[in-house]
Amino acid sequence: MTLTNAQCRLASRPTGLPEASDWSYLEEPAPEPGDGEFRVQVEYISLDPAMRSWMNAGRSYVPPVEIGEVMRAAGIGRVIDSRHSDFDVGDEVYGVFGVQRYAISDGSGARRVDTSLAPAQVHLGALGISGLTAYFGLLEVGRPEPGQTVVVSGAAGSVGSIAGQIARIKGCRAIGIAGGAQKCAWLVDELGFDAAIDYKAEDVRAQLREHAPDGVDVFFDNVGGEVLEHVLARLARGARVVLSGAISQYNATGAPRGPANYMQLLVARASMTGFVIFDYADRYAEAAAQLAGWLRSGELRSREDVVRGDVEQFPEVLLRLFSGQNTGKLVLALEGER
Amino acid sequence: MTLTNAQCRLASRPTGLPEASDWSYLEEPAPEPGDGEFRVQVEYISLDPAMRSWMNAGRSYVPPVEIGEVMRAAGIGRVIDSRHSDFDVGDEVYGVFGVQRYAISDGSGARRVDTSLAPAQVHLGALGISGLTAYFGLLEVGRPEPGQTVVVSGAAGSVGSIAGQIARIKGCRAIGIAGGAQKCAWLVDELGFDAAIDYKAEDVRAQLREHAPDGVDVFFDNVGGEVLEHVLARLARGARVVLSGAISQYNATGAPRGPANYMQLLVARASMTGFVIFDYADRYAEAAAQLAGWLRSGELRSREDVVRGDVEQFPEVLLRLFSGQNTGKLVLALEGER
Repeated sequence: MTLTNAQCRLASRPTGLPEASDWSYLEEPAPEPGDGEFRVQVEYISLDPAMRSWMNAGRSYVPPVEIGEVMRAAGIGRVIDSRHSDFDVGDEVYGVFGVQRYAISDGSGARRVDTSLAPAQVHLGALGISGLTAYFGLLEVGRPEPGQTVVVSGAAGSVGSIAGQIARIKGCRAIGIAGGAQKCAWLVDELGFDAAIDYKAEDVRAQLREHAPDGVDVFFDNVGGEVLEHVLARLARGARVVLSGAISQYNATGAPRGPANYMQLLVARASMTGFVIFDYADRYAEAAAQLAGWLRSGELRSREDVVRGDVEQFPEVLLRLFSGQNTGKLVLALEGER
Repeated sequence: MTLTNAQCRLASRPTGLPEASDWSYLEEPAPEPGDGEFRVQVEYISLDPAMRSWMNAGRSYVPPVEIGEVMRAAGIGRVIDSRHSDFDVGDEVYGVFGVQRYAISDGSGARRVDTSLAPAQVHLGALGISGLTAYFGLLEVGRPEPGQTVVVSGAAGSVGSIAGQIARIKGCRAIGIAGGAQKCAWLVDELGFDAAIDYKAEDVRAQLREHAPDGVDVFFDNVGGEVLEHVLARLARGARVVLSGAISQYNATGAPRGPANYMQLLVARASMTGFVIFDYADRYAEAAAQLAGWLRSGELRSREDVVRGDVEQFPEVLLRLFSGQNTGKLVLALEGER
């Protein structure tokens, strides 16, 4: 069976916002799996802000995607050929398969997902890296205590929306910061956040004074930039700032903006701590089981923004993340025949 | 006995570097102590970078000095009248007595110092708030382990010079960053730092690569600005950045500079934590005893930069801190008759 593979490969390192021309689209015969490998037909591609940082050269928590390489992406697909003892034809599998229709895997970083438990796209969102990032970042790095005030930026995104809900489940007051009245209404009315602040329309500092009169105990930051500065100015004594992301800075053309008032960490005897979700890999199963339990009980709600299309549409769909168009987990669902 | 008091009072809130005119100098009769109070003749005034931040309005870890108030300062003096049961005439006492020749105290924040153990100026430096800041900041916030690499900025200052020496005592590799070849030579030749980097003349990143090839485990930062960014780019996995001060930013006329590459905290799974020495007040005695032991054994060396003068010279002496002229603890020793 000769299959035609469609791929997006990195063509150039963007300055500022990426453009479609930063990837090259190509079609070529899909390779066959070798001994100890399987071939997967990718069905869902996870779109994540971190992808922008993978396009840059230089030191980060993962190596950059090299020019000419298939763009890195997590995804879920079905095994269509297997010469691997642990994966059988028909298995639904999660892995870092890249932005392409067919991928070869030796099984490293891959795991079967149970789509009877939840649809595939949920395994990329609340039950996937997004949910795990929210879970470990909030609970292990942020360590909120019941009754404390937790602020989440990028709160309508895939990670932020879960982080705020976990804070509520743990008995904290959850305040979300998001862009737009619709997203803010969703946070409060649908997800049960105690308050939401529309950073595009409202005075964030005044709103924080109102909704966090005793200060912010935990700040789960996905955004950076001005929003980070606003929250630093309102930290409670002993606060923990969790660095999950800095989406406002990923497309900066000059030097990114550091928090000018970072010495508020001294005033508040507070800490700002970075983490990388991969360090918690040996506890993923425990966390995913907990998240699945909350989904089942209805305490946690998951939302995916699924765009149906083909591999070639990847660049334009990715850009929705940076224009603030998506709510919840952004996923590209690949259509078409095998 | 009518005594003439000389005082520096805050006259205006400076923008940028303070000028002598930001204080008003005045002489007036010294008040008499009331019941439960004592009067001290101030002999040594501690000059600290933090004084600049006390001149600003707004939220900090202590209230600002108000316009018209005597400039806040720690000092050491001799009790000359007492109606306080715990302090006798002739006692040498540490306290926050202000920039003035005579002060009235009700004893709060005051304690007797043993000048037979060490000269008074040492009680403002290695055995005072500077030494305590180095001790608790490094050991409690930085938590270095033997064999780890500790970098200290402002290393030739009162806090930095002690912090680096404690790191050595605890079996760490100590690297100091300071301005000028003379200070750097002092750090290595006299204080036993493993290396020193002259940020005014050398490529700090290249020097860090050379002297900290496995990265920086603990960064004790007194400086902020560019130096902070250079070190963030070299953090080892799990590093701790201790925010002790940001002297490079205290006189900034615009917004202070935040670390543009603060997301290196994520890459390195590192934390940046602020602290305020006053929170450790109930452990000062334990730490001072430890510091005194190291001074006696010769493991720790103390240096004071004592300027003899009168109260009126306070502004010009303070400015030496910001021009990088002092090495070790800067102290104004008041001369003249009672």
